[in-house]
Amino acid sequence: MPSVYWYNGEFIAKEDVRISPDDRGYYFGDGLYEVFRVYAGRIYEAEAHFERLVRTADGLRIALPYTIEAIQQLLEELIGRNGLQEGTVYLQFTRGAAPRSHPFPQGAAPVTMAYCTELPRPLAAMERGIAAVTVPDIRWLRCDFKTLNLLPNTLAKQQALDAGGDDAILHRSGTVTECSASNIMIVRGGTILTHPADNLILHGVTRGVVLRLAREAAIPVEERPFTVDELLGADEAFITGTTVEVTPVVRVDGHAIAAGDAGPVTRRLQEAFAATIR
Amino acid sequence: MPSVYWYNGEFIAKEDVRISPDDRGYYFGDGLYEVFRVYAGRIYEAEAHFERLVRTADGLRIALPYTIEAIQQLLEELIGRNGLQEGTVYLQFTRGAAPRSHPFPQGAAPVTMAYCTELPRPLAAMERGIAAVTVPDIRWLRCDFKTLNLLPNTLAKQQALDAGGDDAILHRSGTVTECSASNIMIVRGGTILTHPADNLILHGVTRGVVLRLAREAAIPVEERPFTVDELLGADEAFITGTTVEVTPVVRVDGHAIAAGDAGPVTRRLQEAFAATIR
Repeated sequence: MPSVYWYNGEFIAKEDVRISPDDRGYYFGDGLYEVFRVYAGRIYEAEAHFERLVRTADGLRIALPYTIEAIQQLLEELIGRNGLQEGTVYLQFTRGAAPRSHPFPQGAAPVTMAYCTELPRPLAAMERGIAAVTVPDIRWLRCDFKTLNLLPNTLAKQQALDAGGDDAILHRSGTVTECSASNIMIVRGGTILTHPADNLILHGVTRGVVLRLAREAAIPVEERPFTVDELLGADEAFITGTTVEVTPVVRVDGHAIAAGDAGPVTRRLQEAFAATIR
Repeated sequence: MPSVYWYNGEFIAKEDVRISPDDRGYYFGDGLYEVFRVYAGRIYEAEAHFERLVRTADGLRIALPYTIEAIQQLLEELIGRNGLQEGTVYLQFTRGAAPRSHPFPQGAAPVTMAYCTELPRPLAAMERGIAAVTVPDIRWLRCDFKTLNLLPNTLAKQQALDAGGDDAILHRSGTVTECSASNIMIVRGGTILTHPADNLILHGVTRGVVLRLAREAAIPVEERPFTVDELLGADEAFITGTTVEVTPVVRVDGHAIAAGDAGPVTRRLQEAFAATIR
């Protein structure tokens, strides 16, 4: 089936999407985005994604050209037109197209783009876990904004792949922040540790779901920074994200985490998470 | 005259440039650029710009699809086709177009785009000077790469404009780094101070020219970080850049720098710089 995009208020074929060379998304990465998970044809945790979208738009001072209600309705129509059952919806807004100049342009309308991608649940990785590589976190200081300035994330991801890992665990001078496109949690002595939701990490929607599930299961949670050493000596480690769900991290920099397979807290949270999807 | 672009190896009208929604420049800001100054139809300091282009491409691991000699020749042809006498040439390479995924894509060819803009020398600002506003530098830690991740630069510029200034002076915890799109130097006790060319600033081509001119004029130069307080108490301050050349900074956060007009070292460097153009 050909891919239908939602582009500047119209449903059109991907081939007809024509980005202006003057789009500030292209010159400056001046825009924001969300990746929504779709299960059984429906958006998962839509409200939390929209909340973050609005927070980033406010932070970047980009006036969203539609109400959240209208966006949600249009994304649902997009999902229907593409016949998407299991996958993602990518939604992006840039500040608009204008001759290249740093100040916000006068009168340029934000550019909207959304499309669907089929994507199964990552069952194999969730079962066997992933190997990660630690990489210095050199990103800017507003990682809580979900923007199009993602170059350091892509470089870290590639660096991890080149080192034989599946993903990069970012750290600032030894303090773990998050991964290249997901959050990370560890378990030590029965307590879940994860970086607080401040300006140094993206406030993951799945992170929020998992912390809620942990609390509901009476698993102690501490939102505090932990070090690479604490990670290496952890009882369990796992990442959380819209597409990775709850995926165990079983090796870091070539060292096994505990026994080198998924631990009981991780498994419990995977089951609880799966229950929220059904 | 309609604008002729150099786009993926062809000279075409701007209207015919069609950026793919899958361009990694659009998704991730995964690309690099240069802005060349053109005086009297010729590229100024081409070699220094190309050196930086290659250094950024190496750092980002983007294989330039042309030799530097070929790029220079094509830019010269672009200047000729556009009849540009005084202005800039913008040149950009992205990693290419591929379905959105953080790892480097296999087999995607870099996307090239270049175009010309007419721009007179900034004679008025060079004469009267500009007012600047200090803004925290929240950028990533590879500001020496000239990449398309420029969102913090645009936000800082707009913040300065909103505060009634002309540009933003960025600082990390009180240590001045550079401006939103130019380098900054101050004069204290006859010595020029400017942040060293490390990972925290862009290594400006004009910065390099001005430091050379200062040394030729036997003006002492110290490449060391200075503080906002040292800036406020400086005898002179000025910014350097491809389009701003050597422009005095006469007010910072509402405070006059020294007498509030351009100082003798600044004037001397402006004259020496103008002589390099002729």
